[in-house]
Amino acid sequence: MIFELAKNRKTIRKFKKDNPPIEDLIYAIECAKEAPSGMNSQPWIFVIIRNEKLKRKIREICERNEKSFYQTAKGPLKEFLLKNNINWKKEFLTQAPYLIAAFSYIKAPFAKESLWISIGYILLALEEKGLSTVTYTPSDPKEISKILNTPAEYKLEVILPVGYSADNKKKCKRKNVNEIIFFDNFVGGE
Amino acid sequence: MIFELAKNRKTIRKFKKDNPPIEDLIYAIECAKEAPSGMNSQPWIFVIIRNEKLKRKIREICERNEKSFYQTAKGPLKEFLLKNNINWKKEFLTQAPYLIAAFSYIKAPFAKESLWISIGYILLALEEKGLSTVTYTPSDPKEISKILNTPAEYKLEVILPVGYSADNKKKCKRKNVNEIIFFDNFVGGE
Repeated sequence: MIFELAKNRKTIRKFKKDNPPIEDLIYAIECAKEAPSGMNSQPWIFVIIRNEKLKRKIREICERNEKSFYQTAKGPLKEFLLKNNINWKKEFLTQAPYLIAAFSYIKAPFAKESLWISIGYILLALEEKGLSTVTYTPSDPKEISKILNTPAEYKLEVILPVGYSADNKKKCKRKNVNEIIFFDNFVGGE
Repeated sequence: MIFELAKNRKTIRKFKKDNPPIEDLIYAIECAKEAPSGMNSQPWIFVIIRNEKLKRKIREICERNEKSFYQTAKGPLKEFLLKNNINWKKEFLTQAPYLIAAFSYIKAPFAKESLWISIGYILLALEEKGLSTVTYTPSDPKEISKILNTPAEYKLEVILPVGYSADNKKKCKRKNVNEIIFFDNFVGGE
């Protein structure tokens, strides 16, 4: 059951215009909040962004900041980006009907670890509802935090654009499980 | 479905002696490997530890390192630890039939984030199989890495003791979903 969802789920960067029910996003966050966290501090806030103007503003900030990064990329990174048709353009930030901006409460113990466990829960819950996303980590989270009036003790960890997939791409291939499991002792590695 | 698993799942620190089928642990890791990762680098290795001597050695290292931490704890942390009966003793490291030591490949982009998404997948997959765990983050991962012959570019992020629960504790309470969702703008905070 988890395996089917995990296996079928893939990163999507193109979305249909159709609005999914907001209840499906809230369902995913209801799942996220059940995740464990250091001292049960639940160090997470999820901002659901549906305002078009705000999405455009976020896209503008991200694209400005990413341009230089993509222009200087080289080696295996450049290859990966080209092969997967990834560039500084972030259409998905305006194309997706919703953005979920996920914040960690930096004063909590293991805030980052806890937040990313909860993202794992969200990804599977969205898949269950037939929704797609990409875990997009903006290169300048602070500028976006500012326009969302984020208190200083919260850190923007990731933006999840959420919608129905308009992408027929295949899922990127995974290693064989034998390559990532060892028994009792860490033998070899990659 | 995800919600039921997420909701029912709770952190467990006491385990029965019974050995769960190793296939159930491998199933959870099969799920984990489907998680997304930066550049699809799949920056994770899972070492399944079942050797009793090795588990005792790991427990010994952890307890030695944790003693001073617990002895100096104060304020809300101390309260939380007392209330939840958590101390420097880590019986679960020898009581659980298996330990899964999860490593991130530190040279990969977003290695930590990716690893912890995969931990989210594992937690739900273990729950699906009726298995329990605690996300235990040792205070000196390097000493444990050493005895597992870990290559320098891998970082021990977490140890998951895995087994059948022998703990009747209630799940720690979660916030209401309204407290962790905002719309369009980050209003207030906690």
